[in-house]
Amino acid sequence: METQTLLHWLYVASMVGGALLFWVWSRNPKGVPQYEYSIAMMIPIWSALAYMAMGLGQGKTEVAGQITHYARYIDWVVSTPLLLLALAFTAMFYIPKQERKLNLLFGLVAADVVMIVCGLFADLSENSTARLLWYICGVGAFLCVLYLIWTKLRQIAINSDAELGVYIPN
Amino acid sequence: METQTLLHWLYVASMVGGALLFWVWSRNPKGVPQYEYSIAMMIPIWSALAYMAMGLGQGKTEVAGQITHYARYIDWVVSTPLLLLALAFTAMFYIPKQERKLNLLFGLVAADVVMIVCGLFADLSENSTARLLWYICGVGAFLCVLYLIWTKLRQIAINSDAELGVYIPN
Repeated sequence: METQTLLHWLYVASMVGGALLFWVWSRNPKGVPQYEYSIAMMIPIWSALAYMAMGLGQGKTEVAGQITHYARYIDWVVSTPLLLLALAFTAMFYIPKQERKLNLLFGLVAADVVMIVCGLFADLSENSTARLLWYICGVGAFLCVLYLIWTKLRQIAINSDAELGVYIPN
Repeated sequence: METQTLLHWLYVASMVGGALLFWVWSRNPKGVPQYEYSIAMMIPIWSALAYMAMGLGQGKTEVAGQITHYARYIDWVVSTPLLLLALAFTAMFYIPKQERKLNLLFGLVAADVVMIVCGLFADLSENSTARLLWYICGVGAFLCVLYLIWTKLRQIAINSDAELGVYIPN
């Protein structure tokens, strides 16, 4: 077995282990809502499936003489929005459900999906101009994600609870 | 016209007819909320589009000498989560909107999407080991769907109304 294949399968095993760990923790939730555990389990399960494809030698294609592992993007296009949702739900923990900013959640997920899709298109581009343009668009979307996290989302966290909002405790 | 093509177009016609029927029913809702009708219309419309693709000879690819109709999976990855949502909203009919179990809806849809995607990957796999592995993962996800329906969802239905929860009336 090639080292890369071995690493892919090790990754699959760790992700399955991670999902199981979240499931065990969810049985004794300590005030964390169940949907946080559901999201936390879904992320490694989805990622494990994508890496299982790579472990099986699937999920790749040759473009302009180079191998593009599009399975990575299938992983990220689902797992990174879920990570952002988990982060956003944590920041909005003390806000009553019906007052949560759905447009902020939507904006985060939308910008993130655009970022990943641009990355995939960059990777699949045959000429370097196209590749660069897609890359720039992806970076633009990434800046939107960062902006939303560090301004809007952080402000919500700071306003609702000092410990939740301040990432460096005094 | 081949028999298969004819059957595809007959299916498209029945689905369009089904969507229209739900629309007609939605004009005289008898206490059923409009979103149930919207979901009920979206399912056959989406399915009709997928089968129109197949009727036109699209939505298929050859893998390892066999034809994979991936249009079926594009159909199922949207229509089956909507069917589950419709079922879940029916089970939660008497629960106030803000108290509905979003994590259960999320879990049902997530497990279902994983199931369909695993099925697609099994169908696209060239060697039988990969095909079997994807199939096993898909069955695992299917068991999660069944578990959520027959335990959590059914319990909600039973708790809120006897007729809603008991599927075999005494």
